[in-house]
Formats: sequence, structure tokens, C-alpha cells
Amino acid sequence: MAQEKLLIATAIASWKQIVGRVDAAVAGFSDEQIEKQVAPGRNRVRYLIGHLTAVNDRMFPALRLGERLHPELDEAYITNPDRAQLDPVSVEDLKKAWFEVNSKLTAAFEKLTPVEWLERHASVSEEDFAKEPLRNRLAMLLSRTNHVSMHAGQAVLAK
Amino acid sequence: MAQEKLLIATAIASWKQIVGRVDAAVAGFSDEQIEKQVAPGRNRVRYLIGHLTAVNDRMFPALRLGERLHPELDEAYITNPDRAQLDPVSVEDLKKAWFEVNSKLTAAFEKLTPVEWLERHASVSEEDFAKEPLRNRLAMLLSRTNHVSMHAGQAVLAK
Repeated sequence: MAQEKLLIATAIASWKQIVGRVDAAVAGFSDEQIEKQVAPGRNRVRYLIGHLTAVNDRMFPALRLGERLHPELDEAYITNPDRAQLDPVSVEDLKKAWFEVNSKLTAAFEKLTPVEWLERHASVSEEDFAKEPLRNRLAMLLSRTNHVSMHAGQAVLAK
Repeated sequence: MAQEKLLIATAIASWKQIVGRVDAAVAGFSDEQIEKQVAPGRNRVRYLIGHLTAVNDRMFPALRLGERLHPELDEAYITNPDRAQLDPVSVEDLKKAWFEVNSKLTAAFEKLTPVEWLERHASVSEEDFAKEPLRNRLAMLLSRTNHVSMHAGQAVLAK
């Protein structure tokens, strides 16, 4: 395999590893655990799963991979802090959304070529991208992978 | 810049971004905050900083970048859980070690070529690497970057 393909495959493997760990945690959270706050006065696990699902879902338009699947999560889990809104979907549907969003993202990631990974993401203008070529699709993948890790580290505190 | 160089530069930029955020947090933690547990009965911030410093320090031998700088942290912050051992260094020296380890790692990362990033890391045998070429240096960089994110997400709960 060519160097650039191996580098991309390594980055996608990292995404899969981190998301795979959260998959196992999400599947294993009981209804009681999912309502727990990760620390006193902090976000519930349910909020964190909703937040990660919604933020990852936004990668479809941001990486020009197609339409979003679950915009109904944004109001409760991105725009507002925890418990400011009613949960928009059941725990069961939230878990399903988590799996659906990430498995479809992974499938889309695996179709991109190295050249496409080096193209700009939609959150940076063409003008800015000309000056900052590292604000590419790969940068967003790595950033979102780290975002999952950050909140996953919090969610495990409720176990 | 060639494709493979841009891909590597993007991964190093991600490492720098995540470590840079923790740099700011580490510099800003008061002596009181650094002794706080991130949640009741959980690790202290001080333990997490020690743990991340020690684990990152192990990248020097694991990526064949030279000798470790702070092996004295392992016993208290990797081998044992929090509070099982006395803290081996002062808060001031721990903060210094965090900055020293990561700035020297970053300098070493920036000297590696794409081909070198695709070589195996020292935690995988040559035999296994022949079958699993994604267990390369880049994989370890991405894994350690996510490890920093995970614990940084916990440490901010003590703020």
C-alpha cells in the first residue's frame, strides 16, 4: 500500500478504536447509569452520548459526506447545557442514533482518497484554507476522535 | 508539500493542539485544584498529570526517540493507583516535567519522515508488524493524543 494510504488507514483505525470503546460502553450502560451525572452537578451520561452523537453527525455536512441523520439532537445536546431541555428521544433511540451515525461515518471515511482527506473541511473558507492547509478533512477527523475520547473519559466516571 | 508530509503535519498539529490545551490547564491549576479529586473517590488532578507525563515519557523508547526523562514517575502514577504511593516530586517539578516531556517529544516528532512514521513502534514485534502494518509510530502518536484527551476531560471536572 502506498505511504499516504497507510497513513490514512492508520488515522481511520484510531477513530474506529476510540468509537469502538464507546460502542461497548454505550451498549453496556444500564438505564440507571445513563441518567447519572459524571460528577456532582455535571453532565449526565445521557447528555454526553447525545452531545457526541450530534457533534459527530455534523461531520456529514462538514466533510461533505452527505445529509445529517439526526438534527433533532442539536437543540438539547449542543445548543443547550444539560437538563435545560427535555430529552428529545428515548434512551433506546439515542443508543441507536449513536451506532447509526458512527457506522455510516466510518463507511464514508473508508471511501475517501488521501487527496480528498487533504481537502478543506466546510468550516474553513477557501481563502483561509489557502493560508492554512492543515485545516483539512483529516484534521477534523482527528479533532472529533479526540472529542469522543475527552467525553468518554468523563462518562466512565459514572460506571 | 507532498501528500504524505501534509498528512503527518496534520497529525502533529492535532497532538500540539491537545497538548497545548492541557499546557494551559496545567499552568492554571492552583495548588488546591491540583489536589482535588475529579469526582468523589476518583483520581486527583495531580495523579492524572503525573500519569499523562509518565505515559507520554514512555514514548521516547517506544518510538525510538531516545532515553526517557522521568522514569521516577512510573511507580506512583502508572504502576499504582492514586494515593497508594507518596507523590515522588513536588507540584512545581511535576508541572515542569509535563512541559519538558511534551516539548521534547514534539521536537522529535517534527524530525521524523513519513517513512519513519510508518515503521513499527517498539511495543509490537517485527513478526506481528509484518501482519499488522497499522501498528506503526503514527498509531502510537494518535493513541497517546487520545489518551491525553481522555484524562484532560476528567481533569477539567475539578475546575
